[in-house]
Amino acid sequence: MPSDQFNGHIAALRELGGQRVWSLMISLFGDLAQAEGDSIDGPVLSAIMTAMQVKPEAVRVALHRLRNDGWIASEKRGRISRHSLTAEGRRQSAAASPRIYATPGDLAGDWQLVLTEDTSTETHNAIIRAGYAALMPRVFVGRAGKAVPAHAVALHGGPAPDWLRRQLEPTALAPDYAALRETLEDLTRALPRPEEISALETAVLRCLIVHNWRRLVLKHPALPTSLVTKDWPGHHCHVLVSTLLERFRRPDLGAIAAEIASP
Amino acid sequence: MPSDQFNGHIAALRELGGQRVWSLMISLFGDLAQAEGDSIDGPVLSAIMTAMQVKPEAVRVALHRLRNDGWIASEKRGRISRHSLTAEGRRQSAAASPRIYATPGDLAGDWQLVLTEDTSTETHNAIIRAGYAALMPRVFVGRAGKAVPAHAVALHGGPAPDWLRRQLEPTALAPDYAALRETLEDLTRALPRPEEISALETAVLRCLIVHNWRRLVLKHPALPTSLVTKDWPGHHCHVLVSTLLERFRRPDLGAIAAEIASP
Repeated sequence: MPSDQFNGHIAALRELGGQRVWSLMISLFGDLAQAEGDSIDGPVLSAIMTAMQVKPEAVRVALHRLRNDGWIASEKRGRISRHSLTAEGRRQSAAASPRIYATPGDLAGDWQLVLTEDTSTETHNAIIRAGYAALMPRVFVGRAGKAVPAHAVALHGGPAPDWLRRQLEPTALAPDYAALRETLEDLTRALPRPEEISALETAVLRCLIVHNWRRLVLKHPALPTSLVTKDWPGHHCHVLVSTLLERFRRPDLGAIAAEIASP
Repeated sequence: MPSDQFNGHIAALRELGGQRVWSLMISLFGDLAQAEGDSIDGPVLSAIMTAMQVKPEAVRVALHRLRNDGWIASEKRGRISRHSLTAEGRRQSAAASPRIYATPGDLAGDWQLVLTEDTSTETHNAIIRAGYAALMPRVFVGRAGKAVPAHAVALHGGPAPDWLRRQLEPTALAPDYAALRETLEDLTRALPRPEEISALETAVLRCLIVHNWRRLVLKHPALPTSLVTKDWPGHHCHVLVSTLLERFRRPDLGAIAAEIASP
């Protein structure tokens, strides 16, 4: 079981947002068992969820919901349940992963402006699906070199003025990003070295980081760094998340099982 | 006096649009006597206007109006009146000349898109004054390398799609441009070699060409060729005007005076 000290470190992160259990479990499976053939054994899942202070009954309800929604499949192997993402769950997880796990370096580089022929919903949606951010009707921005959908023309951007960066900020998310930034900064200072925490603790830590990051970053399109204000809290969060996930690597599920077997 | 044959050549050009006499005279002074110190003697002015079938009374009324409006100053030298552009008349003439006398080659080259910070009238006017064409609120286009006003960012354009060229066409002027194009094509075929027409005829020819071109081209911003549809009649007019003005060079005012003196 996680140490009291570790529980203290992650308390703020655990309490950040409305953490729905089923959503937390999607973050967990996406982080630890996204590949085809990956699965999480019932006892390991229970230990991780308990460490995040989720009650067993809430885990059962969430699992039931995720099975009903086609996200997760469970099968019995002897006395142990084995849970894994379905093909559809893996697909959705994989679709979100590039955005969640991109490093700040992945977003470095120039930007381009895309001007569309018209304001039709069809054209708009095609551009948004291609990963561009809408600035105003017919005008979108994204990383230079990104594919340009039909009925649109791309222009390479030079140095972006501050007003453009500000206009592109998902302002409504600024308070949430600021709160996450503060929490992650405290956490970064407080956490011991990776080898000083258990595999279970590492799983819990990563799950909470990924989850809190995911629920903000997936709410707005990715912008190249050249279009992001220097002091945008979302950018600081990105650097902190990326550094923490790089430092606290994915634990081995077998190691967690071993920890549980011999507490 | 112009030959009947010459009068036949220019008839269509003379009858193209609502040619107000004062406006025709501004075209004439701009073409023949724009520099400081330049002037047109009364008899030469009368001969040119008569050749354009403007009655002496209409010339007097127009001169009166242009003097009242501060465009033209007249002074008596003995029995002869001498007319010249005022400093303000020269300033306005000079401001329009780059647009009127630009060759198609001057408009060759790439284009750029300008995005403004806001939709304020102040910003809009600054961009228009800088010679950009408005595509939609906050979005303007112009030649690559053109100065970029404050509160705006420029992006270099690549190959422009057809839909963008079409959206930038000053469509309302298409019929007038098509009519001018047809007239200029007929004229180009009909006209003899430059040395076969008199200085007076050359002045009349140039004045009518410049005037009919000016009243269309000054109604919309200049677009680089890279943003103009291949079959846009305005572009064909530009090529025809430029070729004719190059071929029929500005006549010497003294040569016209000499022609009048010894008919």
